[in-house]
Amino acid sequence: MATVLSIDIGGTSIKLAIVDQGFNMLDTVSVDTLAFENQDAFFAGLFQVIEEMTGKQPKENKLLGIGIGAPCGIPEEGIIYGAVNLPFSGKVEIVKLIEQRFSVPTFLTKDSYAATLGEQVLGGAKSMANYVVLTLGTGLGCGIVVNHQLVTGANGQAGEWGHTPIAQSNRSCQCGQVGCLETYASASGIKRTLVQLLADSFEPSSFRDLTFREITAEGIYEAALLADPLALEAFSITGKVLGGKLAELVAIFEPEAIFLAGGLANAGELLTDKVAEAMEKQLLNIYRGKVKILGSSLGTNEAAIVGTASIVWNHLNVCHDE
Amino acid sequence: MATVLSIDIGGTSIKLAIVDQGFNMLDTVSVDTLAFENQDAFFAGLFQVIEEMTGKQPKENKLLGIGIGAPCGIPEEGIIYGAVNLPFSGKVEIVKLIEQRFSVPTFLTKDSYAATLGEQVLGGAKSMANYVVLTLGTGLGCGIVVNHQLVTGANGQAGEWGHTPIAQSNRSCQCGQVGCLETYASASGIKRTLVQLLADSFEPSSFRDLTFREITAEGIYEAALLADPLALEAFSITGKVLGGKLAELVAIFEPEAIFLAGGLANAGELLTDKVAEAMEKQLLNIYRGKVKILGSSLGTNEAAIVGTASIVWNHLNVCHDE
Repeated sequence: MATVLSIDIGGTSIKLAIVDQGFNMLDTVSVDTLAFENQDAFFAGLFQVIEEMTGKQPKENKLLGIGIGAPCGIPEEGIIYGAVNLPFSGKVEIVKLIEQRFSVPTFLTKDSYAATLGEQVLGGAKSMANYVVLTLGTGLGCGIVVNHQLVTGANGQAGEWGHTPIAQSNRSCQCGQVGCLETYASASGIKRTLVQLLADSFEPSSFRDLTFREITAEGIYEAALLADPLALEAFSITGKVLGGKLAELVAIFEPEAIFLAGGLANAGELLTDKVAEAMEKQLLNIYRGKVKILGSSLGTNEAAIVGTASIVWNHLNVCHDE
Repeated sequence: MATVLSIDIGGTSIKLAIVDQGFNMLDTVSVDTLAFENQDAFFAGLFQVIEEMTGKQPKENKLLGIGIGAPCGIPEEGIIYGAVNLPFSGKVEIVKLIEQRFSVPTFLTKDSYAATLGEQVLGGAKSMANYVVLTLGTGLGCGIVVNHQLVTGANGQAGEWGHTPIAQSNRSCQCGQVGCLETYASASGIKRTLVQLLADSFEPSSFRDLTFREITAEGIYEAALLADPLALEAFSITGKVLGGKLAELVAIFEPEAIFLAGGLANAGELLTDKVAEAMEKQLLNIYRGKVKILGSSLGTNEAAIVGTASIVWNHLNVCHDE
């Protein structure tokens, strides 16, 4: 059987899967990203995992290619550059390094593009020509599909919508700007919102006994389920900011649906309902009631793995057909 | 010779052209939009002009189709709905009305889409896969091309970027919202900015002797050439607002170029330079120095006529081929 290896590199974990042409996952492994102190340790560890995974596969399962989805991936150049949540931030020629080691064609995509394609291949966007996927993790990734095609831009760098400003915010962003959307609408953003609420209000809250480091988006979600007032308010603010800004994306693209994926989206309707409500309020009349806010039916990790695998299969099939 | 009729409906004038398949204009007519008091007068006048134009053509010039570019045009439904600068604002089945009268296939597009396609057919975007056209007239129209294809949205209503908010503005917009980009970045917007400057400052200015109604974008441009300080400041503010917001569009699409068209864009470098400067300042590092701000090489009117004609020719050729 022909297989490809799909690698989803994130700030928290690196997920790997051996995937067949029907997008079945024959083997999956997850590695902690923070286990690697620097670039050398990262690649030594990654290579070891790949060797173990491919070594375990039956002889007849031939590995035809490798796909990588990564933050700050520049597909055209095969490099990751300027990553802020990985063990390296400089220019890393990841495609070249992997091809040299494993001698199979290797393809790179942005993590948000991978998740977006995954929704098209196996997820909720199967029949959609125009949709948007937002990955709400440490940052805010954005993938946009227009007329069934991914928007990649003139140099493969489109989709940095997380770094557009929202009104009246002074929050510093990892990108160097101030007031970016992702400083609110992401797992790290809701944490900052919660901590700001601790400063602004007198409300009792379980979070008054936690350090900044101890507070997590997951913890805020769990507290919201227990009706912690500040956790609920943090979700409300996050939904309002994201929904209001989404009204702009709708005015530009008029997508059929917007999928919320990534860690923060695990909060489900607690988030999607607030986002939909805020978006509807800001929409021009012509768009009202027409644009769905949906969760990822695949789960972000799986969507990214499937989307990355689909890029590899597409490249291999095109080459095969020629 | 086969011909089509291209109609560009604007708030100020209606431009008509008989266009051959090589996009040569065999005859052109312009009519004042405000000459028509209501919908009935509008269509009576339009029909008369069309009859005169087609009547004057030699017998062998057969009219195969009609194309209309109009503000608030909904292509899929063949209607204009919610126009604020035309002699009618309700739902008008313009395609049906014209087909009934002239018995040729008739196609409708948004005026901004028409101008955008015109740049692709004969203008500066000929070789571009990803670009944006902004028509800065009474309002701000927006056409976006991704992977060589026009972004029309799930229901043909994409491109209302003029109705996304800018920070810290209380200006009412024709759409019912407050603080829309087009309340600054348009011919009517720069006029409002100029009048606001009259209120805010003590600067001497030729505009202190004109009524609100008498002030025009064209007049502001002429005064700017004569170094009127408030006119220069109005262009500076307009460029700053539009350029800052354009940085967001770049982060979303990463276009190769952004074309400024429409009446306000006749100011040329006085506007484009300010817009480019403000945009560059707000861009993420990865986009800096890569996105061109250009004037329309065709002129907006001609671009819209050519773009509308191209839609008709495309439809006719597809039908012919089938």
